[in-house]
Amino acid sequence: MSATPGGFRELGGPASQQGMRRANLALVLGAVTRLGAASRAQLSESTGLTRAAVGSLVGDLIDARLVREGAVSLDGRVGRPSTALIVNDRGPCGLGLEIGVEHLGACVVDLRHEVRVRIRRPLPARGRTPQETLGALAGLALEALAEAAGHGLEPAGVAVAVPGLVAKTGVVAHAPNLGWREVDVAAALSPLLPEPLRWLPVDVDNEANLGALAELWHGAVGRDFVHVSAAAGIGGALVTDGMLLRGRRGFAGELGHVPVYPDGPACPCGSHGCLEQYAGEEAVLRASGLRGVPGDRVSLLAAEAAAGRVRVTRALADAGRALGIALAGAVNLADPEKVVLGGAYAELAAWLVPAMQAELGARVRIRPWDPAGLTVSALRREGPVVGAATSAVQRVIDDPSSLRT
Amino acid sequence: MSATPGGFRELGGPASQQGMRRANLALVLGAVTRLGAASRAQLSESTGLTRAAVGSLVGDLIDARLVREGAVSLDGRVGRPSTALIVNDRGPCGLGLEIGVEHLGACVVDLRHEVRVRIRRPLPARGRTPQETLGALAGLALEALAEAAGHGLEPAGVAVAVPGLVAKTGVVAHAPNLGWREVDVAAALSPLLPEPLRWLPVDVDNEANLGALAELWHGAVGRDFVHVSAAAGIGGALVTDGMLLRGRRGFAGELGHVPVYPDGPACPCGSHGCLEQYAGEEAVLRASGLRGVPGDRVSLLAAEAAAGRVRVTRALADAGRALGIALAGAVNLADPEKVVLGGAYAELAAWLVPAMQAELGARVRIRPWDPAGLTVSALRREGPVVGAATSAVQRVIDDPSSLRT
Repeated sequence: MSATPGGFRELGGPASQQGMRRANLALVLGAVTRLGAASRAQLSESTGLTRAAVGSLVGDLIDARLVREGAVSLDGRVGRPSTALIVNDRGPCGLGLEIGVEHLGACVVDLRHEVRVRIRRPLPARGRTPQETLGALAGLALEALAEAAGHGLEPAGVAVAVPGLVAKTGVVAHAPNLGWREVDVAAALSPLLPEPLRWLPVDVDNEANLGALAELWHGAVGRDFVHVSAAAGIGGALVTDGMLLRGRRGFAGELGHVPVYPDGPACPCGSHGCLEQYAGEEAVLRASGLRGVPGDRVSLLAAEAAAGRVRVTRALADAGRALGIALAGAVNLADPEKVVLGGAYAELAAWLVPAMQAELGARVRIRPWDPAGLTVSALRREGPVVGAATSAVQRVIDDPSSLRT
Repeated sequence: MSATPGGFRELGGPASQQGMRRANLALVLGAVTRLGAASRAQLSESTGLTRAAVGSLVGDLIDARLVREGAVSLDGRVGRPSTALIVNDRGPCGLGLEIGVEHLGACVVDLRHEVRVRIRRPLPARGRTPQETLGALAGLALEALAEAAGHGLEPAGVAVAVPGLVAKTGVVAHAPNLGWREVDVAAALSPLLPEPLRWLPVDVDNEANLGALAELWHGAVGRDFVHVSAAAGIGGALVTDGMLLRGRRGFAGELGHVPVYPDGPACPCGSHGCLEQYAGEEAVLRASGLRGVPGDRVSLLAAEAAAGRVRVTRALADAGRALGIALAGAVNLADPEKVVLGGAYAELAAWLVPAMQAELGARVRIRPWDPAGLTVSALRREGPVVGAATSAVQRVIDDPSSLRT
């Protein structure tokens, strides 16, 4: 069946001229993005809109600094020379912010999806109030924007990546590794930001969701994948036909609490045998004999494994086995094209992947598992903050008329 | 974050006058459906379209026999009397067909989503070629349509429920319980149908998908749920925001092959410890000591359990435990509002539910499991064929301009 109908259609407004213009602005901006550089005539051909309509829409996009005029060319044809239109790399941009357990991050992405500014600063969140942490984050935002201004970029929106459950309202319901409960990050952060930023939309999202969206926008994994990443906890995300599955309350993706061995060890969540008990950072460090060692534990694990320390490579293989079992269930349920290893797992992939492939191959049998379906993120631990910045600029690309000027 | 952007917008056609009319036809038909009976003035108010536009759109809907004029009323106001418009219960309808392992089914649903015709006939598929089975199914279709014609109903589309993996092309890739591989049901069935039916679109879908869609359209479970049903195998389906998740190749929902105890018994699929080894029909019959008994095994299990036979109630409780473990994983991953027990499970719910609730309560801890989230389908084993018929008529409701007249 081709269509996936969803009950009787909700009553929205009627299709309107205004709605058409809005959709067509996005259509033309999308065409400029895809063509790289295009004349008005080429845009008309590519979108099916008349030249007059394209001319008017391009005028609006130029006024909003989303598109700019580039080189003039004769197209090798007789007639008027045409001006190439290109996506503006000096206009609106997205600001991404990240609250980690041990660091803060900031990132600026332009309309072409290029990362232009990237700052990462160690700062343990433990022992700080949300207000203190958000104050430091506002300072980092200011730094990032000063650097962006040097490139001629102005923020059009802000998104914040948080290691915790974020309700659909944007409120952080629970971030156990930060010790936060019911923190309205957008409401608390906005007043701390300087003037132009204070009035921009601030989105808040789970780091694993943003890591998965970063993969969608920057990776080469297509539009149907399961993304699994490790940071403080294990984050899962299901992207299907380019859409992130968020769930009823926005809490989807808790792969870390999928039962692997139902009678296994107790998990702090209250259940038994959850994936985190086998493949979470604490579990792997404990099995490796490295628990309590200070510093960047992921780099340490990678170094020890690379040096051939058997206890570490065995701990990572065991984690890979548990990941493979949990992901086999997710693949059987969701039939994705790819499984993507992100975050800290990407840096440990060499020691996780063989056991994961063995389990996926043994347990995805309804149609044979293709080992090429398991891929490793190139963004690694940068995924969430890059995803945050990109989501903020993508909002403008999807709906140019939303830009506040 | 409110929006779920999906990368750069695909280049479709521009928003057009024709597309607007198409959307507005659906808008008006949807409003008539929701209001029950409405005057043109009320439709204008409800949709935001002008009275002139509503008048013209209603004219088209009447010509297509989707809407008809009902009683004339004075609305209690001074002025012209107005005619109530209602959804036509004597116009286009959907024909659903079902290929079961032991039976064939047919169902007719009208534009109001009411079931008007229902036929179920025992016919074991084993030992018959696909051509023979489809020949018998075409005969059943004819019977159902003769009955529908008696109600003044004419088929607008056909959908077929199949117990197997259906590729997005509509081809049945594998139906192990029928012994079918790579059967193009639509291509084989259409020539067997009589004249008017032969030219209609024939959709083919997995029975568990159609059972879940029936729940979406006819049940009271909202738009975000996991549906798990038992027929020959175990069928899972995830509906999120009113959309059925189909997966990259259309093979999503294989809850029956989610690992429950990874080192458990071998499954015919090639894996170990799959849910089907604990909660599939064969496993439950074996554990109940009822394997090989002829007749309707589901009714037999229910009767034996109701009579208090301990071996049967224990087998069902064990199945419920395994279902609870697998569903806890699915709930942690997808954050649905409801879990719906359908098909044969609905008839055995009394003995499955207590163990399922215990496991869900113990394993969905990130946010507490609400026992009211587990519900039982009222459609039971009728779900797939009712879903097939409804999907065929829903296609017209979603896009009235698709109706072939």
